[in-house]
Amino acid sequence: MKIRNIIPVALGQQPAPAVVRNARIFNVFTGELEAGDIAFYGKRIAGIGDYGQAEQVIDASGLIALPGFIDAHMHIESSMLVPRQLAKAVLLRGTTTVIADPHEIANVLGTAGIEYIVRSTEGIPLNVYIGIPSAVPATRLETSGAHLGTDDMIEFVDHNLKRVIALGEVMNYPAVLARDRELITKIEILRYRYKKIDGHAPGLSGKKLNAYLCAFIRSDHECTNRDEALEKVRRGMHVFIREGSAARDLDALIGAVNPLNHHRFSFCTDDRDPLSILTEGHIDHLIRRAIAHGVDPITAIRMATINTANYFNLRSMGAIAPGYKADMVLVDDLERLNIRMVIKDGRVVVRDGNLVEAMSGVFADVPESLGQVRIPEVKSDDLAVARQPGLLRVIELSEGTLLTREARLEPKVEAGCVVADPDRDVAKVAVLDRHRGQRFSVGFVKGLGLRHGAVATSVGHDAHNLCAAGVHDADMIVAARHVASQNGGLAVVRGGRIIASLALPLAGLMSNRGLFEVAECLQRIRGALKELGSEREVFMPLSFVQLAVIPTIRITDRGIVDVDKQAFTSLWVDSPS
Amino acid sequence: MKIRNIIPVALGQQPAPAVVRNARIFNVFTGELEAGDIAFYGKRIAGIGDYGQAEQVIDASGLIALPGFIDAHMHIESSMLVPRQLAKAVLLRGTTTVIADPHEIANVLGTAGIEYIVRSTEGIPLNVYIGIPSAVPATRLETSGAHLGTDDMIEFVDHNLKRVIALGEVMNYPAVLARDRELITKIEILRYRYKKIDGHAPGLSGKKLNAYLCAFIRSDHECTNRDEALEKVRRGMHVFIREGSAARDLDALIGAVNPLNHHRFSFCTDDRDPLSILTEGHIDHLIRRAIAHGVDPITAIRMATINTANYFNLRSMGAIAPGYKADMVLVDDLERLNIRMVIKDGRVVVRDGNLVEAMSGVFADVPESLGQVRIPEVKSDDLAVARQPGLLRVIELSEGTLLTREARLEPKVEAGCVVADPDRDVAKVAVLDRHRGQRFSVGFVKGLGLRHGAVATSVGHDAHNLCAAGVHDADMIVAARHVASQNGGLAVVRGGRIIASLALPLAGLMSNRGLFEVAECLQRIRGALKELGSEREVFMPLSFVQLAVIPTIRITDRGIVDVDKQAFTSLWVDSPS
Repeated sequence: MKIRNIIPVALGQQPAPAVVRNARIFNVFTGELEAGDIAFYGKRIAGIGDYGQAEQVIDASGLIALPGFIDAHMHIESSMLVPRQLAKAVLLRGTTTVIADPHEIANVLGTAGIEYIVRSTEGIPLNVYIGIPSAVPATRLETSGAHLGTDDMIEFVDHNLKRVIALGEVMNYPAVLARDRELITKIEILRYRYKKIDGHAPGLSGKKLNAYLCAFIRSDHECTNRDEALEKVRRGMHVFIREGSAARDLDALIGAVNPLNHHRFSFCTDDRDPLSILTEGHIDHLIRRAIAHGVDPITAIRMATINTANYFNLRSMGAIAPGYKADMVLVDDLERLNIRMVIKDGRVVVRDGNLVEAMSGVFADVPESLGQVRIPEVKSDDLAVARQPGLLRVIELSEGTLLTREARLEPKVEAGCVVADPDRDVAKVAVLDRHRGQRFSVGFVKGLGLRHGAVATSVGHDAHNLCAAGVHDADMIVAARHVASQNGGLAVVRGGRIIASLALPLAGLMSNRGLFEVAECLQRIRGALKELGSEREVFMPLSFVQLAVIPTIRITDRGIVDVDKQAFTSLWVDSPS
Repeated sequence: MKIRNIIPVALGQQPAPAVVRNARIFNVFTGELEAGDIAFYGKRIAGIGDYGQAEQVIDASGLIALPGFIDAHMHIESSMLVPRQLAKAVLLRGTTTVIADPHEIANVLGTAGIEYIVRSTEGIPLNVYIGIPSAVPATRLETSGAHLGTDDMIEFVDHNLKRVIALGEVMNYPAVLARDRELITKIEILRYRYKKIDGHAPGLSGKKLNAYLCAFIRSDHECTNRDEALEKVRRGMHVFIREGSAARDLDALIGAVNPLNHHRFSFCTDDRDPLSILTEGHIDHLIRRAIAHGVDPITAIRMATINTANYFNLRSMGAIAPGYKADMVLVDDLERLNIRMVIKDGRVVVRDGNLVEAMSGVFADVPESLGQVRIPEVKSDDLAVARQPGLLRVIELSEGTLLTREARLEPKVEAGCVVADPDRDVAKVAVLDRHRGQRFSVGFVKGLGLRHGAVATSVGHDAHNLCAAGVHDADMIVAARHVASQNGGLAVVRGGRIIASLALPLAGLMSNRGLFEVAECLQRIRGALKELGSEREVFMPLSFVQLAVIPTIRITDRGIVDVDKQAFTSLWVDSPS
């Protein structure tokens, strides 16, 4: 936008190309609701006030105009949608800016994967800023598809200086505290370019937190309780309250927000599947939840807009003001936040729950596949686990958190081998190296709710090795092979037969289909999971079973991981605690 | 500071070089007062908590630690001190960071002047960031010493990228609205380097304000009433509340600050003389005034610290937190704000009102002179103003504001010539081109309080031409010549004799003497002004009589200026209104 050209429109000397009329305007700076026209010029707001002349009038009678919502931290790949399809989903919910960390695709394809995310989001009506992944690979405890070194990072950042906004979540906090030279170099590369350094430090506290902050890491989205959030805010962190599909922290954290500290909080979704977005919502859902918890709507909306813009130094976002981007959400009221219209770059993109038709062409153009999924040759027998003395170390999942617990259980044994035990909700889990097709490992997981069959997925944070879980080894093999044959995806198997699946041929992470097709498919998968006896989301928690950077216990293609020790551990343990 | 080196100190694995013990710590993020040690490493804070081991212990029993104060906008030259002497003055009052706009010296010496400010503030215990002057010359209505073009600006900014933080106050708002290509280019140069664009738009409102904001100008320090401040905040400006020596806006503006908008306000001093700083205070004075007006100390301190740091994207200032600069102020309590200690870069620099001795050497090294003052040959007779028909257009000054009014008065005439009229507080004023020694003009000014003699000064915003004012033409000539002979300065003359003066041989703006010497001299000048019958500060208001960018009427070396029309006007006017 040229300053020269917008000024005559702002001054009212030239008619605005478009004007929003009759809205009450929510002012994030003052907390007021104002009356006035909002005049646009190109992708910007030219002025607020009395702009009588306009080429196009957008009538917003009875509506309240809010700034477009900002997601402070998310992974596009977790939606299993390509960026342009994800854009459709979040625009429907009023999100106009996302800070995307392409951590997943980078762990599979390296900078080529990040390039895909950057290039495929050019020119679409969603602001997509990149937090360049700090942890590729995330740990040395799994087989990764790529290594994103300091040399790659300098090159990529300097070639994409306007799109890269941060170093993505520095999850390897032990490496920070151990003063790992490579990681500190990554931080310095971004810091000296005036970018943010985003954090990821579940449970970090006291002197360790001080040290982590000394590395200029100034945000965190991994708080799981109020006191943790308060300590992090006190020490200078900006806390992103996360409400993903699996990790749901809002209820636990919202009590930390008060009138004196609310400007240090933002909202993020991290990992959200398209069904959650379409049915429950995106950032709008977090605003609603916060308001339901008694947070003042002014505060809740600020956390979804200007607070995040301020943190990321996004100078012209997060507010409805002259010179700012013409990105906004029109709602009925501030309680239910019923979204009636979404405007992006000065154009109406959503009306009454539907994308405006003229927009749909923008979202086409999806490649058939990216990268290749290769798994080792594994047969049913290979999954057998011989009974050994002691107790079985089981990865126990909990709803609403990414944290796992270690359960030590008496194994269920058949013919000398440990088997799944649906009565105690224990399933077998296998992780297969999908990058080089070499290693695999077997363990047990509690909490998926599976009573029959098996599932498999090529989505598995952070290296995205192929993971199968179930109660029958043969079904696990069928599921794993099906996913590999599709070049990635999800599969639900019962009695040797695929009863539902979704192909994810883009890096084994994303579908080449449209938003609604993927959403329908996920609905069918939910039905199929019920056939396996589970009322759970299964695939979302299963995708975190490999996540060797969040406590307590995980499984990768190389074995069972003790996260705190960042070391492998045995499947068997002597004592019950 | 190397991240590698601070981490072991933060972790408590290595003793801190220095620790502040027993302070209550003011937390700007949460508004809390916390207990704990503050451990330093080098110029940074390594941690807050329990840091038992330390090489040096700074005992702060009974004191509250606040972050060092930040002045959001000021002109070092207005103190008539060189930067290192100004540093002493403001450090005594707890200011550890200033955003300096070297607008005055730039208008005299161009980039060479800015270079002097930048180089002479390297390595001193004060963070001096530069807002590069946007208006050199400020207008075409006066003879300026320099032209700072877009080419000079690109070169200077890129050579000083870490020190330049903003485009200094864009005061030529008519040129913005008229889409002046040179000015817009200056804005774009800074904007594309992610620097701030600071504003200066007294009274701008409505669509003109919208247009000004569309040029990415996001701050203003020229509000003079509550409604103006509220409108500017509403439209997205960060408002700097100014309390200079002459322009005192705090009382009028503080009522605009409320719990919903306070994060959009900061404090600045703009132009403050050393006597005001030493006796009344600097940013600490604004905090105290705000608290006296009933503002919560938490809010007042935020306006002096983190709010300003956030606006300027000063990532590690404005708070006491790990990784932040070890800049802080220790006070007795939050009401009186009695400053007991100031710490800069982890070292105590001020204790109980005195600079720590070890610091004094840092401030030496001042050049004898910079630039040269040349004035035209002017004799008493040249100042005569012949009586003409109509009323005299007189520049009327008001206390506490830079705005002037136009008074239309019946002239006092002696021997066919208009003379000063002390009974109505009207003095003659002459402005002499000091850059090329060519032009001069004569007018009248009301409000200096002079009853005898004359004064002269080489400080005169923005071109800093030499200005003499008084009731006797001969004394005016003596004063002007004395100032010129000193290569700049202030002079007070009565009966043809210099009764007090201060040489300002550095660009005609700054003394080559130390802080306390200058302060003493200014005290003597105050006494001398009383001998002339004035109880006013005289030199400060007189320095703004040439300021052709702030309404309503001014005088430059080229004539009487109608500011709104940006044109010259006659000394004579027909009608009384």
